[in-house]
Amino acid sequence: MREIDESEIEPLALGAWILGTGGGGSPYKNYLNVRKLYREGRRCRLMDPMELADDDRVVVVSNMGAPLVGQERLTDPGTQVRAIQVLENYIGARFRAIMSVEIGGGNGLQPLLPAALMDLPVVDADAMGRAFPEAQMTSFAIADLPMFPLSLVDIRDNEVIVARAASWKWMERISRKVCTEVGSIAATCKAPRTGKEVKEFGILYTTTKAIGLGRAVMAARKAHADPIQAILEREGGRLIFRGKIVDIARRTTEGFLRGIARIDGLDDFRGSLMQLDFQNEFTVGTIAGTPSVMTPDLICVLDTVSGEAIGTETLRYGQRVTVIALPAPPILLSPKGLEHVGPRAFGYDIEFRSVFAGPGSRAAPAGERA
Amino acid sequence: MREIDESEIEPLALGAWILGTGGGGSPYKNYLNVRKLYREGRRCRLMDPMELADDDRVVVVSNMGAPLVGQERLTDPGTQVRAIQVLENYIGARFRAIMSVEIGGGNGLQPLLPAALMDLPVVDADAMGRAFPEAQMTSFAIADLPMFPLSLVDIRDNEVIVARAASWKWMERISRKVCTEVGSIAATCKAPRTGKEVKEFGILYTTTKAIGLGRAVMAARKAHADPIQAILEREGGRLIFRGKIVDIARRTTEGFLRGIARIDGLDDFRGSLMQLDFQNEFTVGTIAGTPSVMTPDLICVLDTVSGEAIGTETLRYGQRVTVIALPAPPILLSPKGLEHVGPRAFGYDIEFRSVFAGPGSRAAPAGERA
Repeated sequence: MREIDESEIEPLALGAWILGTGGGGSPYKNYLNVRKLYREGRRCRLMDPMELADDDRVVVVSNMGAPLVGQERLTDPGTQVRAIQVLENYIGARFRAIMSVEIGGGNGLQPLLPAALMDLPVVDADAMGRAFPEAQMTSFAIADLPMFPLSLVDIRDNEVIVARAASWKWMERISRKVCTEVGSIAATCKAPRTGKEVKEFGILYTTTKAIGLGRAVMAARKAHADPIQAILEREGGRLIFRGKIVDIARRTTEGFLRGIARIDGLDDFRGSLMQLDFQNEFTVGTIAGTPSVMTPDLICVLDTVSGEAIGTETLRYGQRVTVIALPAPPILLSPKGLEHVGPRAFGYDIEFRSVFAGPGSRAAPAGERA
Repeated sequence: MREIDESEIEPLALGAWILGTGGGGSPYKNYLNVRKLYREGRRCRLMDPMELADDDRVVVVSNMGAPLVGQERLTDPGTQVRAIQVLENYIGARFRAIMSVEIGGGNGLQPLLPAALMDLPVVDADAMGRAFPEAQMTSFAIADLPMFPLSLVDIRDNEVIVARAASWKWMERISRKVCTEVGSIAATCKAPRTGKEVKEFGILYTTTKAIGLGRAVMAARKAHADPIQAILEREGGRLIFRGKIVDIARRTTEGFLRGIARIDGLDDFRGSLMQLDFQNEFTVGTIAGTPSVMTPDLICVLDTVSGEAIGTETLRYGQRVTVIALPAPPILLSPKGLEHVGPRAFGYDIEFRSVFAGPGSRAAPAGERA
């Protein structure tokens, strides 16, 4: 257990946004909120998951909804606190610690808000190692852990508990409909986990990973080096495409942000066109009709110069972008994992093929833990 | 408190179906279910609301959804029991008695199912004195009582609690979306009420009223008299229209059954055409472009010969029907009541005008309490 220093908030936001693979919502407002809480004298502690006792209760938080709406509707940190209190009252017990369902995007910082306000530690882990749009797309769902109870609150005074669900997909369907009805953005607590479950089935040390990633980008910028190269080296990633966005179709539907971006190749990719599909997060990238990169490999769209991540809600015509792939956590690549988060889970009739598959194709991750 | 005799179940179903004003769902399956429970030796007790202690807890049950789906998807009585148990577990207390949110249609019998299985009495009251499609259309909502918590369960294993809602309309919106998602039919418990609230704001003795109404119809049939005349005399009702259904447009949308029926006049009404709109229940009847009968007056469509009620989901071409109006409970006619259940609440830009308005226009209700 250690205090998260104020200087770590910016790199955490930066790194989480990269790991968001276009989704999880922009971390910018959560970043401002955490900074404000720190200025008010509040602090967050980061807890090594191995410090959790087996029977500790961990609440798994998430700002749920369509990223585009998250950009437009401000929430205050108290909304996530209310969601936790609703769940605590429902289960009749207090939580030992808070973790995010996904390290990617704004949700990478989401646990810090209630952590600062409730003086509970943030567990250095998540359940995706990135961001994904749906409830059943977590390591906990892949491990067939129980999917209930879930709490959901909005900025008005609506509070919903899904006390039981017939399956993870039913949990997703029901909670998504409620989320959509209250305006496609809501603070939720997914099914709480025991310390044992987090240690066994969580994606561990991802908060630290995001901070380290953000720091690498900041260091490269300071040294006038290439931030994207720094990311690729640190994470063992791979350059997929580089170009200019020439078309973007986006619609907010059924609580999701769906669409397609087209990127006209530049530099080594001149003459090629990449189509990049998304459902909150980037799902499949296609070049000349052939899928060249696909979920659960992390597909990250970065500003070619600054290395800043670009979300599916902030893509726009004319942006110079670089598409990279980062390796996914191993549990997502298992046969059961691919059922939950592979291309077929998003409606694509294609077999998963990792850009990291094959001998010698994967660079060793570089760099230390922050 | 008295036992409901097996011979009362049929007239209760018959009377509740008339009071349903087209909605509340056909009572037929609940009638079969209650009869089956009686054959198995179970019994229901009917409780005078005045027997409730002020602080008794009363659970308000409802089979929620689109009547057409209720016709197609069978439920078993245990589903409503589960909804009650979910709410009991949530509030951490047991209920003293069960009442229906609406006496109309299948929901007039809905409390008998858990009552027989849980050995709890049915309160002789409801919150509408008829049926209405939405959560805020109750005497409890008109009286501004709290609208939460609500429980909702389906035939799978989904259980949802709306722990708080920003308003009655928000409660309606959220619970309706969940209901729609699980297939447009679900067993629900609306916000529980205290004995004091039931006594002050319930529509009292409506179970008894429905049984008496059903008995009057059965007696008229047996005597080869006109059942519709018997209903009008007993309830102080008014004949509105008689004819043959020549057109019916119906769609199940957003958890409701909406549509329009057109009735070509017969007998005294030959040469006229009535248009009858519905949203689960009949809302407004129009003749020659002029609204001639409207909610909250009870608009009942009856088989011209048998006096059997016809639901919005069982209307069909060629039926010979008689449209009558029955007086609404006074609370629905108050200015606040009309805000909740008047024509404007259903999207019609017309002032409410009761067919019972004006001196001498309302016959005195005849008959005794059963």
